[in-house]
Amino acid sequence: MTDEYPVSAPVNLHEYEVAARALLPPAVYGFFAGGAEDEVTLRANRVAFEHWRLLPRVLRAIREPDLATTVLGQSISLPVMLTPLAYQRLVHAEGELAAARAARTAGTIFTLSTSASSTIEDVAAQTDQWWFQLYVQREREVTRSLVQRAEAAGAGALVITVDFPVLGRRESDLRYGFTVPERANVVDRPLAEGATHSWALGWDDLEWIASLSQLPIVLKGILAAEDAVLAIEHGARGIVVSNHGGRQLDSAVAALDALPAIVAAVESQAEIYLDGGIRRGVDVLKALALGARAVLLGRPFVWGLTVRGEAGVAHVLELLRAEIAMAMTLSGCAHIEGVTRALVVPEGVVERR
Amino acid sequence: MTDEYPVSAPVNLHEYEVAARALLPPAVYGFFAGGAEDEVTLRANRVAFEHWRLLPRVLRAIREPDLATTVLGQSISLPVMLTPLAYQRLVHAEGELAAARAARTAGTIFTLSTSASSTIEDVAAQTDQWWFQLYVQREREVTRSLVQRAEAAGAGALVITVDFPVLGRRESDLRYGFTVPERANVVDRPLAEGATHSWALGWDDLEWIASLSQLPIVLKGILAAEDAVLAIEHGARGIVVSNHGGRQLDSAVAALDALPAIVAAVESQAEIYLDGGIRRGVDVLKALALGARAVLLGRPFVWGLTVRGEAGVAHVLELLRAEIAMAMTLSGCAHIEGVTRALVVPEGVVERR
Amino acid sequence: MTDEYPVSAPVNLHEYEVAARALLPPAVYGFFAGGAEDEVTLRANRVAFEHWRLLPRVLRAIREPDLATTVLGQSISLPVMLTPLAYQRLVHAEGELAAARAARTAGTIFTLSTSASSTIEDVAAQTDQWWFQLYVQREREVTRSLVQRAEAAGAGALVITVDFPVLGRRESDLRYGFTVPERANVVDRPLAEGATHSWALGWDDLEWIASLSQLPIVLKGILAAEDAVLAIEHGARGIVVSNHGGRQLDSAVAALDALPAIVAAVESQAEIYLDGGIRRGVDVLKALALGARAVLLGRPFVWGLTVRGEAGVAHVLELLRAEIAMAMTLSGCAHIEGVTRALVVPEGVVERR
Amino acid sequence: MTDEYPVSAPVNLHEYEVAARALLPPAVYGFFAGGAEDEVTLRANRVAFEHWRLLPRVLRAIREPDLATTVLGQSISLPVMLTPLAYQRLVHAEGELAAARAARTAGTIFTLSTSASSTIEDVAAQTDQWWFQLYVQREREVTRSLVQRAEAAGAGALVITVDFPVLGRRESDLRYGFTVPERANVVDRPLAEGATHSWALGWDDLEWIASLSQLPIVLKGILAAEDAVLAIEHGARGIVVSNHGGRQLDSAVAALDALPAIVAAVESQAEIYLDGGIRRGVDVLKALALGARAVLLGRPFVWGLTVRGEAGVAHVLELLRAEIAMAMTLSGCAHIEGVTRALVVPEGVVERR
Repeated sequence: MTDEYPVSAPVNLHEYEVAARALLPPAVYGFFAGGAEDEVTLRANRVAFEHWRLLPRVLRAIREPDLATTVLGQSISLPVMLTPLAYQRLVHAEGELAAARAARTAGTIFTLSTSASSTIEDVAAQTDQWWFQLYVQREREVTRSLVQRAEAAGAGALVITVDFPVLGRRESDLRYGFTVPERANVVDRPLAEGATHSWALGWDDLEWIASLSQLPIVLKGILAAEDAVLAIEHGARGIVVSNHGGRQLDSAVAALDALPAIVAAVESQAEIYLDGGIRRGVDVLKALALGARAVLLGRPFVWGLTVRGEAGVAHVLELLRAEIAMAMTLSGCAHIEGVTRALVVPEGVVERR
Repeated sequence: MTDEYPVSAPVNLHEYEVAARALLPPAVYGFFAGGAEDEVTLRANRVAFEHWRLLPRVLRAIREPDLATTVLGQSISLPVMLTPLAYQRLVHAEGELAAARAARTAGTIFTLSTSASSTIEDVAAQTDQWWFQLYVQREREVTRSLVQRAEAAGAGALVITVDFPVLGRRESDLRYGFTVPERANVVDRPLAEGATHSWALGWDDLEWIASLSQLPIVLKGILAAEDAVLAIEHGARGIVVSNHGGRQLDSAVAALDALPAIVAAVESQAEIYLDGGIRRGVDVLKALALGARAVLLGRPFVWGLTVRGEAGVAHVLELLRAEIAMAMTLSGCAHIEGVTRALVVPEGVVERR
Repeated sequence: MTDEYPVSAPVNLHEYEVAARALLPPAVYGFFAGGAEDEVTLRANRVAFEHWRLLPRVLRAIREPDLATTVLGQSISLPVMLTPLAYQRLVHAEGELAAARAARTAGTIFTLSTSASSTIEDVAAQTDQWWFQLYVQREREVTRSLVQRAEAAGAGALVITVDFPVLGRRESDLRYGFTVPERANVVDRPLAEGATHSWALGWDDLEWIASLSQLPIVLKGILAAEDAVLAIEHGARGIVVSNHGGRQLDSAVAALDALPAIVAAVESQAEIYLDGGIRRGVDVLKALALGARAVLLGRPFVWGLTVRGEAGVAHVLELLRAEIAMAMTLSGCAHIEGVTRALVVPEGVVERR
Repeated sequence: MTDEYPVSAPVNLHEYEVAARALLPPAVYGFFAGGAEDEVTLRANRVAFEHWRLLPRVLRAIREPDLATTVLGQSISLPVMLTPLAYQRLVHAEGELAAARAARTAGTIFTLSTSASSTIEDVAAQTDQWWFQLYVQREREVTRSLVQRAEAAGAGALVITVDFPVLGRRESDLRYGFTVPERANVVDRPLAEGATHSWALGWDDLEWIASLSQLPIVLKGILAAEDAVLAIEHGARGIVVSNHGGRQLDSAVAALDALPAIVAAVESQAEIYLDGGIRRGVDVLKALALGARAVLLGRPFVWGLTVRGEAGVAHVLELLRAEIAMAMTLSGCAHIEGVTRALVVPEGVVERR
């Protein structure tokens, strides 16, 4: 026991960000940490969790809560996946490979970004639990090749990002003159050459993309319930409620705020995941209580990767797992199915029900 | 790419204010930046935008959004005009002339203030897209002359300011002993001589003013829906919802907060514009979604004028145009007509609809 | 015009407090400025004004607004009276005498506190517009003597403080060891001797007090509508909605927050005044719009008294008068009767009505 | 009277915390002061009191308010008991013994924690007004022995903590490497050896525990109204609405926010107490007005114990008693029964009723 505040290992995800920030060049930290314009939505993603409080139940004789669940039929050991994030080699030499291994060790899914700094095949060699995130490319052949390589390499699902018709304006990057690195991405040509993403993707294009493989389709970046309904009509099996981590349209609704209306509209016709703002186990519980099947973790695992590579990502996931287990035990939830809408109430005086 | 925070060109409108503040004498900065009394309404004008969040739509195959619209039948290339502001030569030698040219280059309307530091005719020589803002003068002949000179010089509309029965109490000016400069204004006599504005304007006076020219009448400074209805009954073609940038009645409702009730009351019988608090492209989208046809930009263009004259105003408008285009693309709006009430929701959990 | 921030005459009531604080011993400043316990109610009194915004009307041809009104049939030139405050000689040698003269010059009413540091007769020699505030004393004869002296000296009303059954706990006084000065009060014996106020006053006692004089009775310190109704049943002609400036029960409702329910319950059977938190002309307008007939000003006039004696109190009143006149003109109110409920709306998006 | 801010005796409970913090090693201060994870619930416990304002009544002829009440039939001289807190010898050599004596002197109940640093019998020798708090132990015999020793020693009730299935994650302890001291607890074996508390307690176990003694059962740590109903069905005579002082499930609802729904559900079938966030007499009044029969005081009495041992705890209780008496007098409540729901209103404009 010491009276001085020790600067040892991070004890939570917040502290991983502090540690990573101290290690990274400001431009790289800014690239990952930053949001669009005034970062209203970036902050809103966190604040939205404060709108809700947990109403725990007691005396439920819980010994060891069971955190396991499934996503699109695949088992995961905790309701947390890794979200697709670009250029992970900017923060650690092993980049995506280290993160993928850590996810596998933790028993969950790594999602490989089209803008990754490692190839599809290299990532697939690290883990059999991964999904592929697709930025639809301007050239159809490039898109076809990506999807087919992902399927051949064993991806479990195709996550199509739909909130990226154009690169959002992140002023941190403008200030530092940050540009994405050449030859960093899986498409084997530098994205920095220009907007190779298609900025005019429409619902009709989805049909063609779906025809390219047998992979189940997940749409990432939906906030309006009307779009969630359209997603199902177009065959989506999963929906990631997300505003791209506050990096695209500033002032967009917070991801968690958008969740309940989407859950209500979808009526179990697809699985709903939440992406944005997860920092604590209780955040995961709130998202699940409001109808998400699982959440996607973003920046925090990059901070773990920055600080200690694979071990750092693994530690981030284990910290979160421990917090979820603790929160479930303290809330009276023995299983993930026990995390229901009754667990959360709006901040303020609890209404009788 | 640099790791140091660079002090180069402003990348947004906020940074133009920072740059201008460093260049201006405090009294002049205070004259333009300040509001009445405790600046409650000045701040409220900005905070009101935070009450709303955008609920973007995806996969709408938008290539290049079209920002063009019309105001009173005149085409403008983006839904932003320049609001009337006094004494622009206080911040740059070319004052109104530079701002008018920049607006014309950007394809939008410059509004010349009665308290301008350039003459009607000189401004009219810079642009064919301008409106004239009228402070009704105590002497009827002065008012008549102003209106007729404006019409003769080609003004597109007559913007009558109705929230200025008396000069608001701006304590910044009192502290610095700031007084308006002599011979600065278009009426060819110093306003500083005393209150030459009429402080007892009534609805009946509007009839007489309308009779002075063929110019369409726009009333600027309306916040109550009842007054908007009266404005239409008295022949107004346009209404600027405005509290004079928080410079007149402190504690008046925020302009954006007043907008929806006015839009509902007017029922398309006049065009509604919003003035006050615009700093970002998403602000423009929110105003349009809530029923404004266009917005008027104030302080930010003066900061551009301060920093780089005509080029600064032009840059401010181009930054805003780029932000609007980005926000429309990310929101799924191909045209200005696509920016509808469905795009905005109150801050907080999204209600199912 | 100067670019340096000048430290000259206060331009508003806030600046009078700053100036007075610099002049007073901390214990004396704390005695007047402080509130009970955590000062929750002290702050709430101010915050309550921020819940409301003004919705001004335009083009009403107002030349010079008329601020005159009446209270209990007495004319006052503006809807602001001076509230009873103890020991005004602590801040200026002339104390209550100076304040009373300033009020008279301004054409309004001075209210003399039972805990004043000047005698009834001396104050009555300064002004014919004054009311007497009564702390009912433990000894009936003392109370009788006070009331009869006040009536004999020409008081216009008897303001009975009902929220002072015991001295509130002001921790500023405890920290500085502040005690009320000996022989300071009008009852000709030191209040510091102990609790001479009656702490067990009941509704029945009012009858006896009313019988002591012909003076109209005003009850000061009512927050619950039920008590306002009882006040009328017991013959009160006026009610001061007040929490004793946040100095008695900490966490009591803000005075302005309590006003509307009381106005609704009283239904014009008595005049309602507001005491607490007035710092600006727009505050006065809000109180009047919500149903107050006039307001009582407290701490700000003591700050004026501290800084410049009678002239300071006069300046405070003239600043407030100018602000009220400005606010009425900018709101479209030609007369006090024009300040109606329609002038105020809750903070936030204006509801259609 | 002095003009310098004196650093003498604390005048309120907040100042006791300041004084104690200066005396304690940071790790020990952190152990008592800290909450779980981000301390959202710790802060919420305080903020919840700010949601409510008091609406005092006047002229009720109150001389000396009577603060006495009963809990489970036992008389207490004020509606405040001491909550069970572990290891009080960490802050003062006499620990629980001093606190128990102070409570007895004040005429209220001390609650002895299972994790106390004094034995049951030693505490019972100090006071005849005490309850025993039970952490149900993994070994049934240990639990049986504890309950029977408590009954034999004269405990007035058995307070079973139900929100402690596992030790909450207090990061202050992790940072300082704080561990609970060996041989500190009443069970005569170090709790630090590991989780000897049962982490899988269920409703059924309560029956067995109830059978161990004749002591009335109080369940501590209930937030959901459904659990309060279950508690009554399982024979509980009292319920402590509590989130363990924000030390267990972070983001759990504030104790005060949970109170009204529980009071409504229980319908007087059990006594309801509130634990968490009490710092002022007005806090006690709010809790009682919302339906609590009494409150439990935690951290503040430990700060008193730190600063002055028994005398400090006594002073903390007397400060609180004086504040409650003041608040009752100023609110028009002569007796505890007079503190009803009508006394509190939500923050903001008072609704007519």
